[in-house]
Amino acid sequence: MTPDHLLTALRWRYATKQFDPAQKIPADIWASLEEALVLTPSSFGLQPWKFFVIDSAELKTKMVPVSWGQTQPVEASHFVVFARHHDMPETEIDRFIARMVAVTGATADSLAGYRNMMAGFRQKAQNEGWLNAWADRQIYIALGSFMTSAAALGVDTCPMEGLDPVAYDTILGLTHSPYRTVVACAAGYRSAGDVHATRAKVRYEAADVITHL
Amino acid sequence: MTPDHLLTALRWRYATKQFDPAQKIPADIWASLEEALVLTPSSFGLQPWKFFVIDSAELKTKMVPVSWGQTQPVEASHFVVFARHHDMPETEIDRFIARMVAVTGATADSLAGYRNMMAGFRQKAQNEGWLNAWADRQIYIALGSFMTSAAALGVDTCPMEGLDPVAYDTILGLTHSPYRTVVACAAGYRSAGDVHATRAKVRYEAADVITHL
Repeated sequence: MTPDHLLTALRWRYATKQFDPAQKIPADIWASLEEALVLTPSSFGLQPWKFFVIDSAELKTKMVPVSWGQTQPVEASHFVVFARHHDMPETEIDRFIARMVAVTGATADSLAGYRNMMAGFRQKAQNEGWLNAWADRQIYIALGSFMTSAAALGVDTCPMEGLDPVAYDTILGLTHSPYRTVVACAAGYRSAGDVHATRAKVRYEAADVITHL
Repeated sequence: MTPDHLLTALRWRYATKQFDPAQKIPADIWASLEEALVLTPSSFGLQPWKFFVIDSAELKTKMVPVSWGQTQPVEASHFVVFARHHDMPETEIDRFIARMVAVTGATADSLAGYRNMMAGFRQKAQNEGWLNAWADRQIYIALGSFMTSAAALGVDTCPMEGLDPVAYDTILGLTHSPYRTVVACAAGYRSAGDVHATRAKVRYEAADVITHL
């Protein structure tokens, strides 16, 4: 990709308020966006998340009133709920080590030092009360990467922070699961009638947000 | 960009441990990555951040010992510190409204409702103690988008969470500024000798992180 192509995509992107319900993301493009989610980098590689792709029209309909009445859940081609592994237990460290062993062929013994370092980090985060905040920040890496990947493929998105996460958990049946809703993102194609599409993007001047030292 | 190109870039990306100090990112590519940072979406568009690009060799050298001894600050072509607007005051809402007026031509009066909604959100976040956590999550959108944008351009990155933010603030002179270090990211080109470059990427199976409902 050239710098010009990247900037064209990022300037084209905006938080799509009105999607065209008739336009669906082709299967190969959606599959690549799901794989992009899987490939998202995270702290230590721990991937403290699950991504719920909502196919059910009934679930989507229930989401609208708990999303400040926004209609993206029902109008967008695809709708993804980003959920963190809540109060991530130490067993997740062992699960990740097991995955490292399976993928890389390393022995668990050779990874013992790394395992204990991660376990110490997790315990510190739990003791100091920022374990879930840490997981939430990782989720936002996924959100940022997803929006940029989608834009690069010409797919519109709308990040949905204005939602009731507890109500989402109830609707999705997550309340008693290890996962909790953090944020969501709609994906699809903008409606020709979305007046927001042509509005000027409001960003501060580069000199006001980037400082060379 | 095609789905194949996107996935090739994201699979190629890894947390680069050893950069080639001799390889600098060309000016036009770096300029586009800075603009990508400026274009990062954020909650309400408030951009509660500043990005510090460290050009000074002296500053970079000081960063190594407060980055768990990692050498990316001095070896990478570019090094960016992502800082949040700490305890973001209500005046930032007015600054953003002024920017909206300047960019879109709307009147401040017509934006009064939006302004007050944002001010209410900010006050609630402050009262409930999650104003800085909110800003930090926005920072991670920028981090995720930056890493993906860089990969799309063939630029290597390494996210740096393992750093001492208070020491960074001291080194960068931010301690008494409105900004505080959250995370950093090195960018450049991998060294031919980085053994991490060829290691298998460890991600869970798609079926374990993506669930259709």
